[in-house]
Parts: sequence; C-alpha cells; structure tokens
Amino acid sequence: MPIPASLQNLIDALRVLPGVGPKSAARMAFHLVQRDQVGASDLAHALENALGTLKHCRHCNTFTEADTCDICLDEQRNHAQLCVIEMPTDLMSIEQTRSYEGLYFVLMGRLSPLDGIGPHDIALKQLLERASDGQVTEVILATNFTTEGEATAHYVAEMLRARGLKVSRIARGLPVGGELEHVDPGTLAQALIERRGL
Amino acid sequence: MPIPASLQNLIDALRVLPGVGPKSAARMAFHLVQRDQVGASDLAHALENALGTLKHCRHCNTFTEADTCDICLDEQRNHAQLCVIEMPTDLMSIEQTRSYEGLYFVLMGRLSPLDGIGPHDIALKQLLERASDGQVTEVILATNFTTEGEATAHYVAEMLRARGLKVSRIARGLPVGGELEHVDPGTLAQALIERRGL
Ligand SMILES: [Zn+2]
Ligand SMILES: [Zn+2]
Repeated sequence: MPIPASLQNLIDALRVLPGVGPKSAARMAFHLVQRDQVGASDLAHALENALGTLKHCRHCNTFTEADTCDICLDEQRNHAQLCVIEMPTDLMSIEQTRSYEGLYFVLMGRLSPLDGIGPHDIALKQLLERASDGQVTEVILATNFTTEGEATAHYVAEMLRARGLKVSRIARGLPVGGELEHVDPGTLAQALIERRGL
Repeated sequence: MPIPASLQNLIDALRVLPGVGPKSAARMAFHLVQRDQVGASDLAHALENALGTLKHCRHCNTFTEADTCDICLDEQRNHAQLCVIEMPTDLMSIEQTRSYEGLYFVLMGRLSPLDGIGPHDIALKQLLERASDGQVTEVILATNFTTEGEATAHYVAEMLRARGLKVSRIARGLPVGGELEHVDPGTLAQALIERRGL
C-alpha cells in the first residue's frame, strides 16, 4: 500500500513516544485514523494545551500552570527542608510515599558529560539561589543512584556545602521486603558498606 | 504531586492509543513535556494534519489524500478482481505479500451485532455499487476469520451472489511452514475439513 504522506508523517511522529517502535507506531496511527478520530483530535489538543500552559514553578522548577506550584504555596509543609530531584516524575514518586513534608527543587536533568550536559545545562544556579533563601536548613539529595545521578549529587553537595548548607543523601540499600538471595550483588555490597549502627 | 490540569488531560488523552494503560500514559506525558517538547509539538501537528487531509478513496474506500488512491488509478492492476477487506491495514498486509494484482474494497469495519454494527454501518451499499461496475468479474472476500469477519463474509457473499457476481473466500489452514504439533486445534480441524483434492 502506498501510505498517504500525512499518515506516514503521523507514524513517524508517534516514534517520539517512549517505547514505541516502528511497528507499534504504525498500529497506533491506523488505530487513530481508522477507529478513533475524536480521540486523535483530543490528543492533538491536549498536547498543544500542555505545551502552551505548562511552565516551571519559580521556586522549585517543577511543572505548574501558575507562577508558584501548590506545594511551594503550602504553608503546612516544612520550608526548612529542600529535596533535590532530577525530574517532576521523581517528585510524584516521593509524594506518593506520603513520608516527606518538606519542599522540592527539580533540576530538570542531571550532569552527563558524555551527553554534553554540564553544570550550566541544568538548574544548578537557580538551586543555589533557592537554597540560600535563609529558610532552608537542610538540602536532601534525591537524584538517582545512576552514574549521572551520583555525579550530580556529588557536584551539588560540594556546591552547597561551600555555602555552609547542611546536605544529606537519601539512603541506598535493600528494598523493603527484599531478600538477600534476590537482590543484585552491587546493591548488596553497597548495603553492607552503608550499614547503620543499631 | 498535584498534577497540573493540562498535564493530567494529556495523560488521559494518551489513553486513546492502543495498548497504553494509565501508567504508560503518564510515562509518555512526562517524557513529552520533560524531554521532547519539539517532538510533542510535531506529534500534535501530525495528528491534525492527518485528520485534516486523509479522506476515503471514492472507488475503494481506503485512506488517500486524493479523490482516488494510487492503487485504483493503476492501469497495470487487474480491474476485474476486487478484494474485500475490513480495514486499510489489511490492504497493507496483502500488498506486502506482492501476490495480488487486483483492486480492493475496504469496508471500514465488520458486521458486529453485539456492538450494534449492522449492514448500514459499514460500506456495504458502496461495495454493491462498486462491484456492479461491469468490469469486476470476481469478488474475493478477505475479511478476518473471526466470528464477526466470517459473518461479514457470509452476508457480503449472499448480497453479491444475488446480483450474479462470482464470489470467493481466501483459504484458511495451516500457516506456511506450520507444523501440526504447534498449530491450534481449531485451525487444524478446519484444515482437515477444507482439504483440497490433489
Ligand atoms: Zn514549586
Ligand atoms: Zn482506491
């Protein structure tokens, strides 16, 4: 079948979605035009609306539609704690635990020299200003335990300690309910090294 | 995290994609706004462009951007054969075999009484007109071998035979290279019943 150009363009455009290869992009495109044109139109509008209305909170840099997000505006939260994360999705993960009452700062990325992402490419300058507001007494680093996340945590820790701020790192170890037999050797080794006195 | 409304709308809108549940819709939405806003914008435009430019070929009912699709315009093809299929994707599947040189007719659906889809909801009237053009001598039914596809083939066969047209059905049986040990019992039973004289 000679695929019409606009349909081929749609197949190509769907490849931006994570985990969507050529075959599922084609399946999605045909589904949209064959069976759900209303849904396809809604999706186009939702994309444009999200791109048009989402901006970054002036305090914590996460996505919001206002100047300041609801978390930063919440007087009930602990404004002395600032948890530094890579992405808004990480903020969601932590909020779901209902175990943290402080504020956040979203870097919108991580240091990754191999990808050409250096200190000026993520919101480190903004973090430094934010953490120096006089209210923050502890900065908790919750970047990922990947090579890049670790390098970012290290860099941020140095930067903030140089300003006299107290910095901590979230713990690494076995998952709750984790069995030694089933955890990967690297995590187990790290859990031994980072053992806590009882 | 209180998810901004426009982001939640995007997550909901992504659910129209086949195989995309709530979790992967959220992952896709965050990926688009966090990491690929250009791709997200391209996708929105590709959707609108496809919806705006795709129409149905006046002869075969498949998707095209012109009044008549390239296949129907192709003088090299056999205009005496008309292959009836459910969807444009089925047309693609057959074209990929490079084993059919006739023309097509796309029903854009199948009879499905349980879903309230009756003879007036798919392009049966248009098929009857198309098959009665005086050039078509054989109509090949290539609807799926599902309950609905079989019912549709039966209905179409009756309709066209009543007009004196020659109607055939694509064969059902073991796949090429298929082993009896690995084929499902229903297919094997049908292959026995529909055995061909040698
Ligand atoms: Zn905020
Ligand atoms: Zn056509």
